[in-house]
Amino acid sequence: MSNPSLLILPGDGIGPEVMAEVRKIIDWFSAKRDLQFDVSEDLVGGAAYDKHGVPLADETMAKAQEVDAVLLGAVGGPKYDDLDFSVKPERGLLRLRKEMDLYSNLRPAQCFDALADFSSLKKDVVAGLDIMIVRELTSGVYFGEPRGIFEEGNERVGINTQRYTESEIERVARSAFELAMRRNKKLCSMEKANVMESGILWREVVTRVGKDYPEVELSHMYADNGAMQLVRAPKQFDVILTDNLFGDILSDCAAMLTGSLGMLPSASLGAPMANGRPKALYEPVHGSAPDIAGQGKANPIACILSFAMALRYSFDQGAEADRLEAAIEKVLADGVRTADLLAEEGVQPVSTSEMGDAIVAAL
Amino acid sequence: MSNPSLLILPGDGIGPEVMAEVRKIIDWFSAKRDLQFDVSEDLVGGAAYDKHGVPLADETMAKAQEVDAVLLGAVGGPKYDDLDFSVKPERGLLRLRKEMDLYSNLRPAQCFDALADFSSLKKDVVAGLDIMIVRELTSGVYFGEPRGIFEEGNERVGINTQRYTESEIERVARSAFELAMRRNKKLCSMEKANVMESGILWREVVTRVGKDYPEVELSHMYADNGAMQLVRAPKQFDVILTDNLFGDILSDCAAMLTGSLGMLPSASLGAPMANGRPKALYEPVHGSAPDIAGQGKANPIACILSFAMALRYSFDQGAEADRLEAAIEKVLADGVRTADLLAEEGVQPVSTSEMGDAIVAAL
Ligand SMILES: CC(C)[C@H](C(=O)O)[C@@H](O)C(=O)O
Ligand SMILES: CC(C)[C@H](C(=O)O)[C@@H](O)C(=O)O
Repeated sequence: MSNPSLLILPGDGIGPEVMAEVRKIIDWFSAKRDLQFDVSEDLVGGAAYDKHGVPLADETMAKAQEVDAVLLGAVGGPKYDDLDFSVKPERGLLRLRKEMDLYSNLRPAQCFDALADFSSLKKDVVAGLDIMIVRELTSGVYFGEPRGIFEEGNERVGINTQRYTESEIERVARSAFELAMRRNKKLCSMEKANVMESGILWREVVTRVGKDYPEVELSHMYADNGAMQLVRAPKQFDVILTDNLFGDILSDCAAMLTGSLGMLPSASLGAPMANGRPKALYEPVHGSAPDIAGQGKANPIACILSFAMALRYSFDQGAEADRLEAAIEKVLADGVRTADLLAEEGVQPVSTSEMGDAIVAAL
Repeated sequence: MSNPSLLILPGDGIGPEVMAEVRKIIDWFSAKRDLQFDVSEDLVGGAAYDKHGVPLADETMAKAQEVDAVLLGAVGGPKYDDLDFSVKPERGLLRLRKEMDLYSNLRPAQCFDALADFSSLKKDVVAGLDIMIVRELTSGVYFGEPRGIFEEGNERVGINTQRYTESEIERVARSAFELAMRRNKKLCSMEKANVMESGILWREVVTRVGKDYPEVELSHMYADNGAMQLVRAPKQFDVILTDNLFGDILSDCAAMLTGSLGMLPSASLGAPMANGRPKALYEPVHGSAPDIAGQGKANPIACILSFAMALRYSFDQGAEADRLEAAIEKVLADGVRTADLLAEEGVQPVSTSEMGDAIVAAL
């Protein structure tokens, strides 16, 4: 049997820096645990645009379709702000999501004990927080047609279309219920069914799918109230299911609550491939952070934890994922901190690469 | 000259309870300050549906068009959850916004000193917070066509349309810049221009309008990052400008940050009428709170402050608005608290009506 394959797309900003640390981890697993991956690397986002004039080359897209998992750093940056919409860095990421049909985006919002002090929220509100947001990722207003800027009378109009079919809602709902079954059996679905018909259909289909999971306690909430409740008392939630646009905003809000933004990985999963595993792309929740790029300040943990998710969901190496996560916990418990994690007085921050080395040492 | 006219629409849930306290305030101004209003009262939301089978009767709509200001309590409740979309309580409110063309929704997120402890955020993050969110209120995905649930092949699809014309963006942007000029001359506009063409047009038009306000420092932020920044460091903002749907979510998130949800009023303003004042509807930011309705527990201050906004923006009574706001501050400083405001040990909560009486006494 050939080695499992991994395509690495470092992208822009701090992407390449944090990915270099993941490389060290991969090398460690190869040398010490005899876990070999066929690793290839390619460009996405602004980096791809600089070379190819498009934010994702067709060959890269084809490669992504073939591998067992894709690991992405981050895309975007001010340098590309004035590019035409069709070639913006983000389009590279969106193309991957769409063409790989990665409809289920898992975004944990987890507060690490050692880091509860970093949250802008009171410690008792967030300590121990562990939510999973399941965001639909391949449809909705991100991809609906018609879209564009059109002439109308003597002015222009900007149009996007929110659009969900029953089957699109059903498949992501099913993945959220499955996840809820493996967690605390509580699922809250968020939309604006009081204002949007697409939200009405969403609520109806989620309710129907819920009948197949009678053990899961299902509730529905308007997305604006959801944002409020996340701020007020986030621990009331276990799994949150929502659409592409609401998920974009609510998951960022939830991530920031934890104070652990530089620590949060994500997985975007599609339909099972021939080997039974889902098509998958893993990436940190944080962005490309152009303000600190190239300074060795970035925290590589979110990206390394994204690799741990790949070990677990794509490579059937749950025990090795546990090992990697335990190493990260140990390093944090030892007080090793990148600049984003500095609360204690007198602690000197380590660099991106020192953090990577510390994790390898802990392994 | 005839008296200024005010249409009161208490609505559902705690709406009627908090509005009864506003009535006491209005009576006080009439008796003690010789400020007479032609006050009429009518139904909206579920209350209107129960009587008329629609959430806003045509006669009520016509009355709203004629008066100097509308003051609304809240709409909605679980009793109406299964109603057809077209007659849901919310449609009554949306009809008012749309037909009165109230395009500029001002939502302050203000942290009252006495109440900073109620926030789930750390005190230093929110103490002194004073943001104004300007939300476009008559367009976008709330009203765009096509919309509905349609058959497509052998399944259904839910569709809504995000739609903004240049002139729609321009007029609300102008109102936000005017406001910024009267505040700290800092405006942050939020959209998803990296994903949505309507966001690109939004950013372009806001930038163009900004040229007429060179003193105002204008910035742009993606809405997901906006949600993060609101949680992380809300005091970085002064005026935030955003569209109808993002505004719905971001303003609720911002309101909850303050810990003062039961205290926050809002104004929805349209084009100037013959008397030079804008068409206007005032309402508390909080909802109908069905869980505590009818128990005399609701905090009437948000609704009373909404009336203060009406005094200022619609009735040209800025000094009287100041007087009313000062009375509220005094009552709070005296330690009078409704149940939602209870942090100090040993303080007994007052009822909705006791809070109203205390404010009248302070006047
Ligand atoms: C980079 C951008 C296109 C993307 C999105 O809007 O989905 C990002 O914000 C995210 O949440 O992954
Ligand atoms: C009640 C509802 C229709 C409304 C909205 O979505 O605009 C409310 O959430 C608000 O923010 O005023």
